[in-house]
Parts: sequence; C-alpha cells; structure tokens
Amino acid sequence: MDLQGEDLTDAVVASFDGSLEPRTKEVLSALVRHLHAFAREVHLTEDEYFLAIDFLTRTGQISTGTRQEFVLLADVLGLSMLTVGLGNPKTSGATESTVFGPFFVEGSPEVKNGDDLANGAPGVPCLVSGRVLNTHGEPIANARVETWQADEDGFYDVQKEGLAGPQNRGHLTTDADGNYSFWAVKPVAYPIPVDGPVGELLRAGGRGWMRPAHIHFMVTAPGYHRLITHVFENGDPYLNQDAVFGVKDSLVTDFTQHPDGHYSVTYDLVLAEESQ
Amino acid sequence: MDLQGEDLTDAVVASFDGSLEPRTKEVLSALVRHLHAFAREVHLTEDEYFLAIDFLTRTGQISTGTRQEFVLLADVLGLSMLTVGLGNPKTSGATESTVFGPFFVEGSPEVKNGDDLANGAPGVPCLVSGRVLNTHGEPIANARVETWQADEDGFYDVQKEGLAGPQNRGHLTTDADGNYSFWAVKPVAYPIPVDGPVGELLRAGGRGWMRPAHIHFMVTAPGYHRLITHVFENGDPYLNQDAVFGVKDSLVTDFTQHPDGHYSVTYDLVLAEESQ
Repeated sequence: MDLQGEDLTDAVVASFDGSLEPRTKEVLSALVRHLHAFAREVHLTEDEYFLAIDFLTRTGQISTGTRQEFVLLADVLGLSMLTVGLGNPKTSGATESTVFGPFFVEGSPEVKNGDDLANGAPGVPCLVSGRVLNTHGEPIANARVETWQADEDGFYDVQKEGLAGPQNRGHLTTDADGNYSFWAVKPVAYPIPVDGPVGELLRAGGRGWMRPAHIHFMVTAPGYHRLITHVFENGDPYLNQDAVFGVKDSLVTDFTQHPDGHYSVTYDLVLAEESQ
Repeated sequence: MDLQGEDLTDAVVASFDGSLEPRTKEVLSALVRHLHAFAREVHLTEDEYFLAIDFLTRTGQISTGTRQEFVLLADVLGLSMLTVGLGNPKTSGATESTVFGPFFVEGSPEVKNGDDLANGAPGVPCLVSGRVLNTHGEPIANARVETWQADEDGFYDVQKEGLAGPQNRGHLTTDADGNYSFWAVKPVAYPIPVDGPVGELLRAGGRGWMRPAHIHFMVTAPGYHRLITHVFENGDPYLNQDAVFGVKDSLVTDFTQHPDGHYSVTYDLVLAEESQ
C-alpha cells in the first residue's frame, strides 16, 4: 500500500513475476519501467493522460480490416523501422528491409509473370521486373513475390470505395531463372492518411506527411528469410523526408521512361539464407 | 536516408522540432526516446510488434461510452497511479488522491443529502457520510460530491444491461456545515473486467484482477483543488494486492455493521486550497 514513485514502479514490475512465459515477464517489465520513466521525465499531467487515452482509443476505433492506424502511428514514431532493423540485421549481399506499412491485405490475386496488376487504376503504365536471387547471385525459382502500391492519385485500392477488384496488388511465382515481372502504374509520392489521429499528431508536431514513390514487395521462399521491402524512385523529392523514415540508399533505383510514355524499372531482390 | 539505431531515434526526435507548442515537442521527443529504448532493450521482434498492434487496436475497439479499456490498461500498468501522484503531490492534511478508474460517467443524477442512490442494486444497505473540510478543519459548504461504486455482485451500473436508471451513482451538495450523506449498498471486492485485451494481459502476466471494496469520490469546490479518490474498507483481503495499485493507507477506514444488518461508514474529505 501507499505506493509512490519508484516503489510504485517496482511493485508493477514485480506484479509480472508470475508470467506464464519468461519472455512475457521480460517485455512487460521493461515496458513498465520505460513507460514510467517517460511519464516521470515529462511530469505527465492528468490532462495529458486523458488526452493520450482518448487518442489511443480513437486510433483503435478508426482502424478496420483495410486501415491500420496503429501501424501508421508506429511508422511515424519510427518504431516500425526500429523493429525492422532489429529483426533484419544487414546480411551481406541481401536486399535490405523496410517498413511493412498499413496497406497490405491478405488474399491478393494470384497472377502470372507479365500480367497487368493495375486493373484500371489511374496512372502511367510501368513494367516492373527483376530476379529473385540468393546472396551467391543464384536465381531462386518458385519464390513467391507479393507486391502492392498506390496509384497516380496516391491511393491504395483499399483506400478507395466501390472498386470491382484489387488494383496494383497481387502475388506471383518466379520462373526457373528467378524472374518476376508485372505491369502496374508508375508510383508517385503520396501523403499518408492524415484524416485520423495520426494526422492530428503530425500537424501538432509540425511534421510532413509525404512518402516518396515506392513499390512494396514481400518475398518468400523455403530456406530463406522473408524479405519485406520497398523499391524507391531515384530523384524523388521526398527521399530525405519520408514521413515513416523508411528509405535506404540501397533501395533507391532509376525508373526509365520510354518513347511511348511508359516506364520500366528493374530491381533484383536478394534473399538471405535462413542459416545466415 | 539509411537511418538505423541511434541515428533513427535522433531523426524521429528531430522530426518534432517544428511542433506548434514547445510542450508537444517535449512530450513527443521523450516518448520517442523511451519507446525506442524499450524496443532496443528487449530486442522487440516483428511478431511481438504485430501482436502489440493487434492488442492496442482491440483495446480501442472494445471501448465504448461506458467502457474504457485504455484507462483499465493504464491502471494495471501503474501509469494511472503514477500520473495521479505526479499531479497531486501530498498536501499536508488533505485527503490523498487515487485512480479515477474506467467507470465514471458524466451526467449522474443530482440528489439531496440522505437520499438513497442504490436504486434497486443488489447489496446490503450502507449509509455513507462525512464532511468536506479544508486543511484547517473548517467545513466547506456547497461543495459538489460525486460518488459511484459497484454493487454486491461487483458490477457498476454501466456494466449491466437494461437498467431503468443509474445505480449507486450520483452527486450532491454539502450543507452549511460541510456535511454529505447518502445511502448506497456496501461495496465488495470485485474483479476488474477481464473479458477484453486487459484480461489477456493479466492472465499472460500471471496477475490477479481483484480490487478491494471501495467507494469512488470526486469532490470540487471553488478555490480548492479537485479531489479524486476512493474510500476503502478496512480488513479487505485485497488491500495489499489491488490490481491497479490504488490503495493508500490513509484512505482505508472501518465500515460498521449495525444490529439490523445495515452498514455505515463515515469519512471526512479534506480539500487542498488552490494556493497550496
């Protein structure tokens, strides 16, 4: 009784001593210590406490099967990139990882190499291709390549109402030489959704909300670490001010415009062996 | 670009340099530093990150106008008591504060001294009375005393369906001598709601979920700091294991049983002057 200050923190930490799993105790104890240290450092007021309660509640309530505001919050606080970095230490020769983002959805259409995923989305056609390789430069056949991206208006299909089907989203399997290829629209820089709590946070924080143009990839193959990454467009004005801190130099590449107006981009995706 | 480790943390902290208010920058910068330090210390995995995203989303989504799961989460993590302590440093002679809890609702019935607030709630009748005083022991007339509590089954009215009106909840005004009094039911120890995300957390953490019997008070009067507190029952077996760490020795008092079975409790509520 009469718990205050450090005694209170110690009591809350100790309350997790009976955790069913040692990892639960480890994570929750550390969470409590850091959360309390934060509140003490800023001398959190009761008004701010209730503001935070309301903010977090609304962040949950605006989320749906196709909108994930807590992922967006973790993104703009840099927690997503930090976790990506912790979970995917740089493997020599492998493609680097970046944020998963809030716009992935399960159950994308299965397509074949060369298919068009745009499915009527506004934008300039863009041929995306490359190979899936291991770190020795050898092709990986039958790798699963999942891709998703925004259209020319800056919207993912799941942000739009009344679509007949997915746009700029699908998964395919690499051929015997590790090749993947599909048509989509050329991605553009776009604002992350700022009509919810995360938007309030960014405005209060005087921050921007643009992301440089990119294509999402998630690549899996038996025996290899799953790769979650983007390919960014060289020259994009927002490369140095990505709202979610996701840009890595090695993921930036040229998009080439052709005489008929269409674009193409080629990028090899290199997976790290699970033994690495 | 290529932000990793401490560089990433520094970049996120710096992103708030343009905050509209200095306090926003102060709080968000500290939040980012402590959040990142936590993730780094426990080497947060991507699976745990997604588990946390899902947990927080569901915590928001189970909340309603009468259920506040994020308050409950802050309660069981000790953040509520910590904030109460930061915002209400001990004032000599004044009643101590404790957690607000998730069951307060705006717009409780206005009642008169001596009225019965139970309104049909199950439980043994209990007469609750005392005076509202300043720290010099002088009565405060016309103070507003708001009270709420659980019934004999351990439920607040807002947890029950189909009630005709509020139970064990109301507000009144002290008389010229600072007196307040009302009838309710004798409070009992009860479990906090464990049918949601907070319940999952408590079970995984091997923790209890009981709160010792208590009556909630919120007392306001012009010229005085608002007092948010409980009165606890002496002898309750959960006084030393309150799930939300809210017990203070000075708030524990005797409930007396009378020959006809009813209980009474008397407790003076002492407000700190705003100048203190």
